[in-house]
Amino acid sequence: MHWAISRRAQQLTSSAIREILKVTERPEVISFAGGLPSPATFPVAAMEQAVARVFADNPQGAMQYAATEGYLPLREFVARRHNVDVERVLITTGSQQALDLLAKVLIDPGSPVLVETPSYLGALQAFSLFEPEFVSVPGDDKSLLPEALTPELTANARFLYALPNFQNPTGRRMPLERRQALVARAKELGVLLVEDDPYGELSYTGDQLPSLLSMNPDGVIYMGSFSKVLAPGLRLGYVIAPPELHFKLCQAKQASDLHTPSFTQRLAYETIRDGLLDTHIPTIRQLYGSQCQAMLDSLQRHMPAGVTWNRPEGGMFIWMELPEGLDSMAILEQAVKRNVAYVPGAPFYASNPRRNTLRLAFVTVAPDRIEQGVAILGELFREAIAAHAPGAKAA
Amino acid sequence: MHWAISRRAQQLTSSAIREILKVTERPEVISFAGGLPSPATFPVAAMEQAVARVFADNPQGAMQYAATEGYLPLREFVARRHNVDVERVLITTGSQQALDLLAKVLIDPGSPVLVETPSYLGALQAFSLFEPEFVSVPGDDKSLLPEALTPELTANARFLYALPNFQNPTGRRMPLERRQALVARAKELGVLLVEDDPYGELSYTGDQLPSLLSMNPDGVIYMGSFSKVLAPGLRLGYVIAPPELHFKLCQAKQASDLHTPSFTQRLAYETIRDGLLDTHIPTIRQLYGSQCQAMLDSLQRHMPAGVTWNRPEGGMFIWMELPEGLDSMAILEQAVKRNVAYVPGAPFYASNPRRNTLRLAFVTVAPDRIEQGVAILGELFREAIAAHAPGAKAA
Repeated sequence: MHWAISRRAQQLTSSAIREILKVTERPEVISFAGGLPSPATFPVAAMEQAVARVFADNPQGAMQYAATEGYLPLREFVARRHNVDVERVLITTGSQQALDLLAKVLIDPGSPVLVETPSYLGALQAFSLFEPEFVSVPGDDKSLLPEALTPELTANARFLYALPNFQNPTGRRMPLERRQALVARAKELGVLLVEDDPYGELSYTGDQLPSLLSMNPDGVIYMGSFSKVLAPGLRLGYVIAPPELHFKLCQAKQASDLHTPSFTQRLAYETIRDGLLDTHIPTIRQLYGSQCQAMLDSLQRHMPAGVTWNRPEGGMFIWMELPEGLDSMAILEQAVKRNVAYVPGAPFYASNPRRNTLRLAFVTVAPDRIEQGVAILGELFREAIAAHAPGAKAA
Repeated sequence: MHWAISRRAQQLTSSAIREILKVTERPEVISFAGGLPSPATFPVAAMEQAVARVFADNPQGAMQYAATEGYLPLREFVARRHNVDVERVLITTGSQQALDLLAKVLIDPGSPVLVETPSYLGALQAFSLFEPEFVSVPGDDKSLLPEALTPELTANARFLYALPNFQNPTGRRMPLERRQALVARAKELGVLLVEDDPYGELSYTGDQLPSLLSMNPDGVIYMGSFSKVLAPGLRLGYVIAPPELHFKLCQAKQASDLHTPSFTQRLAYETIRDGLLDTHIPTIRQLYGSQCQAMLDSLQRHMPAGVTWNRPEGGMFIWMELPEGLDSMAILEQAVKRNVAYVPGAPFYASNPRRNTLRLAFVTVAPDRIEQGVAILGELFREAIAAHAPGAKAA
């Protein structure tokens, strides 16, 4: 039996990184590779009470087919939180699904899609299935550069996909002035903005910058998630879109999975309805802030000269640069042999990957293991730098 | 702000039927339009106990990101039930998602896709987004006709999509000899079969016919669902596929929603692990069988000459034919005014819709309301037949 695979599916190739990282599930491996939130932050007791309420209130309702748009009280909760009309809110099966729906509704083969340099790998993958032509927008250690958006660069772009808060993979946050400049420039050029914001509430100090959505609700599609503030295993996200696009996204969702599970939507709503997030999110911020500090301290102690990294103000990731010419992918193989893992930076670039970059996740590893793992990475990078130095081969 | 909608999304049009049927949510409407299972069949008490076990065992695990393939014990359960290798099983967010993933992996724009006449509307919608060229396979009141599969008809077809058991919308079941002939013919012609089987266990007498999968595991993709035997609000389905296709489906799923919620998968597994389905499914069969009989009895009493319908051996639907020339869509507007609803048959045809057909769902309506609703439909059809008769206009 032979079958023809679609052109879009043919380009889904097995990832070399994924193969290497499979071994990181072994308990002896100190993994800075995961993108998982800390299970210590899941409000299990509150959820257990919430489930009891779902069963007490209307279990049949929670188990029946339901509206594609999502559970109305949960949509209203989201609408209040973002100060938008509830008619713009669609609940999705994780925010990954929002990426898939956006691609379905907005991308034709060959359509230009603007992305940050680097950008979120899961988004590049979701969009890729619909065969856009990615256009990388230049950036620096703070964010993309709004002034880089020219009529030439943005011509016919279906949208610009941006993660302004504690971006995956870099952890960087876009400053206020740049947000204002980006929104103004996008409006001027007629570019639809897609704002992906799973980490927005995870600022360590609690200070939050205004969303792009709040600056231009009719020109921004906003994607939110309960994965980082509640629990990812529920697969609950949402997308806020102008009415015409909301309607198209609902139609696409209906064809994709009819609706997000009624049960998990009610479970989430019952968990957060009485203000849990207001007390719960600060505990996540505190934990992640101290985890980040632990890694920054370890990096300071162990990294050789020539290696640089940023100091995130929130979120789950640190972005590192090795000296030009080093390949973090090649070094990963050595690291895994020594039971430490990270994610090489190259796959996060839609074009011209910078192979000397890498992403470090720190929220699920205990500080003593962070210290241990970073010490090993420091040694490896030191060796790699020495081996790469001029004349090293002769030594 | 203007935006370009993708070509595939432009063809997502608002359904006239959906607009008419919106009113059927009013409690005074007797709706034979829904495709919902009866909430009386949801094993709520067992699920409540199952949730307690999930929280007692490993709540963090149930709340964390998880493998794209699905929760291993649930996959193993499915594999045992269908006598296949667990490596072929992928858990999906309802079987609607399986349709989306199949389309992603197998359909290019313009690819021929073979479908039954008529076929499941949700599948036509999911596939349509990927712009296949539908080819309708002729059938009769039993099923599609295997002998209709010629090299000409099936040339370059990506797959043949079939619902052998109690098909939505017709309720028909493919006889054993036709299954054998279909599998043999598909093998000979190199046509991949997609077997969609949400209703397979809902035979009223409990007799089951062998699946196409069991006849040729390497030439059939099988789609199953927990929506009709457990509860649709969990959005749990699965797809069993030959290894190479399984792998592609997993990649497509990762881009679509990463994985199906861990929590609902564990909830389902804990509900069914100790054999609940063996005692539970017979209660659904019994209920649906007696509901079907109630509707058949009412139809017998109230339908005028010229109206015909089938006698399903299982599932949730009866298929009806009005005399040639009548339009069930036009009559639906009258019916809704009199507080009765059904689904016109035309949208279930990929081509050449037969406008004198309609689908009646009977599992959620109490027998006295079935009687009442069918009596009204009988009157309406009688009037329509009279109005349509030669010379009627002059009368």
